[in-house]
Amino acid sequence: MTAAPRMPAAARAVRAGDRRALARLISQVENRDRSAEPTLRALYPFAGHATIVGLTGPLGVGKSSLVNALLRHLRAQDHTVGVIGVDPSSPFSGGSVLGDRIRIDRDPADSGIFFRSMASRGHAGGLAASTREVTRLLDAFGMDVVLVETAGSGQVDVEVGRVASTNVVVLVPHLGDEVQSLKAGLFEIADIFCVNKADLPGADGAARYLSELAGLTPRSDAWRPKVVQASAVNGTGIEALWSAVEAHESYLKTSGQDRALLRERIRDEVLDLYRDRLLTEATDRLERSPELDALVTAVEERSLDPRSAAERLYRGRSAGRGG
Amino acid sequence: MTAAPRMPAAARAVRAGDRRALARLISQVENRDRSAEPTLRALYPFAGHATIVGLTGPLGVGKSSLVNALLRHLRAQDHTVGVIGVDPSSPFSGGSVLGDRIRIDRDPADSGIFFRSMASRGHAGGLAASTREVTRLLDAFGMDVVLVETAGSGQVDVEVGRVASTNVVVLVPHLGDEVQSLKAGLFEIADIFCVNKADLPGADGAARYLSELAGLTPRSDAWRPKVVQASAVNGTGIEALWSAVEAHESYLKTSGQDRALLRERIRDEVLDLYRDRLLTEATDRLERSPELDALVTAVEERSLDPRSAAERLYRGRSAGRGG
Repeated sequence: MTAAPRMPAAARAVRAGDRRALARLISQVENRDRSAEPTLRALYPFAGHATIVGLTGPLGVGKSSLVNALLRHLRAQDHTVGVIGVDPSSPFSGGSVLGDRIRIDRDPADSGIFFRSMASRGHAGGLAASTREVTRLLDAFGMDVVLVETAGSGQVDVEVGRVASTNVVVLVPHLGDEVQSLKAGLFEIADIFCVNKADLPGADGAARYLSELAGLTPRSDAWRPKVVQASAVNGTGIEALWSAVEAHESYLKTSGQDRALLRERIRDEVLDLYRDRLLTEATDRLERSPELDALVTAVEERSLDPRSAAERLYRGRSAGRGG
Repeated sequence: MTAAPRMPAAARAVRAGDRRALARLISQVENRDRSAEPTLRALYPFAGHATIVGLTGPLGVGKSSLVNALLRHLRAQDHTVGVIGVDPSSPFSGGSVLGDRIRIDRDPADSGIFFRSMASRGHAGGLAASTREVTRLLDAFGMDVVLVETAGSGQVDVEVGRVASTNVVVLVPHLGDEVQSLKAGLFEIADIFCVNKADLPGADGAARYLSELAGLTPRSDAWRPKVVQASAVNGTGIEALWSAVEAHESYLKTSGQDRALLRERIRDEVLDLYRDRLLTEATDRLERSPELDALVTAVEERSLDPRSAAERLYRGRSAGRGG
């Protein structure tokens, strides 16, 4: 598929591999700049080819080393890779682009990699929506794989996890405080558990424990989460981790779950955007309306209760439209 | 004011001082039982007389001892008092009604006190809405003062703080991790700082530090937060604390801030209820609609993008209503 001639210039630039245009567009998404919408719309048909992998887990489990190790593995197989680091506590944050470590790991001229950190502004839902949009841009840019790394802090990870088709939860052999994070909903989103730092004592025990727990956790599909041991620093287990991702992706396809999941997510996204639109319009209109002031006064004087006031606003709206 | 004859029986019972009816109604509010709405509406005009005081602060600062000390002080002055404990980590939670300590402090037959713990279900906004409703019930029941105690864990406290007219933030002399909670927005809601355990070393320094900080924090009104030292266990400073509450309440009245605050909160509440209503209706209708399915399919096939799909739903709704 090539870019149609009447596409916005920025969309054409992204499709032509212009990394600066891509970076600018991502900033617009982060800033909720509505002028980017025509470009996002134009690029939408070009997305849908990348494998989106979420990586989450508590602080200190070595997620960024693991992302680096996966990157090396994927680039060695000639896969192009986008990486999104989500959360202020992430090593990707502050525009530091993976800090110093990445200079060792990659050739800065490698056009097969694109990194981006995203600051956690506002509520989890908003961040998830921006992350989904940026994932789509990297996908439309032509990346084969997009790795989305989140900080393992609970609700944000669960929301962002809904962007990926395969979610990896990263842990270490000594399961202590990490179990708290699992309680926060990470267990439910894990398609794969990766016990990193598997050279430490207790790795086998942790893996066994996770396998048992994984079998007990109810899921909406028939996939049983795989448990993989790895050592990002020693470079072991990375191939097994990627094989597990591929196994899950192929399960999604053969079971038809990929389509069910996609439909469910599109449905949620469309409804969310619709609700946003509805609320923005309703709130803008109401905040300028003298009707609201009159109702507030009636409630203040206790001749009306808040629920009845809301009901009148609601009915007034319907009547206004219908009449 | 007496109960009108056509009031729901439950509302009449609450107005007549029936504590069981009150407890039942509070449970209905907690469970979001819509059948309670007529009763809530009927009781609304009877609320608006109580002084609502919020107490929050980090774990371990002795909030529950302070609540007990305030209770004794207020009962000695013949004020009737309702207490709401919000949050699972609160000593009020789990229906334990202040645990063992309260048995020492009060006569169980004292009808001038009503306790209630509220579990933190769902999001902060929902809990704040339920707390506001329960506060109103205790107010309509005839309590002079309602103390709302929250756990000092951030967003929940800020949201719940909007229910009270005076908010007390409780701290201890050794300001360490507590400063973290202050960053989470507690500083902005504090009308009064209470340095509890003021018999510990460092109380004067902490009070001075808080006074300085209070002077630096921007507020939408001219009130400068008062700093009070107390020792709930020794029973010192409680009178000063209540005097500070009364000073703030009287500031609200003489400055007209009380009315401005009330109008602002009513406005927010009515808009929230309206938005809930709008979203519930829109979502219920859409989830049954074949139009949504068709749009999801178009987005899935990438002949349409999610934003355009939402826009079509939105326009379709307007057209349907207008035509």
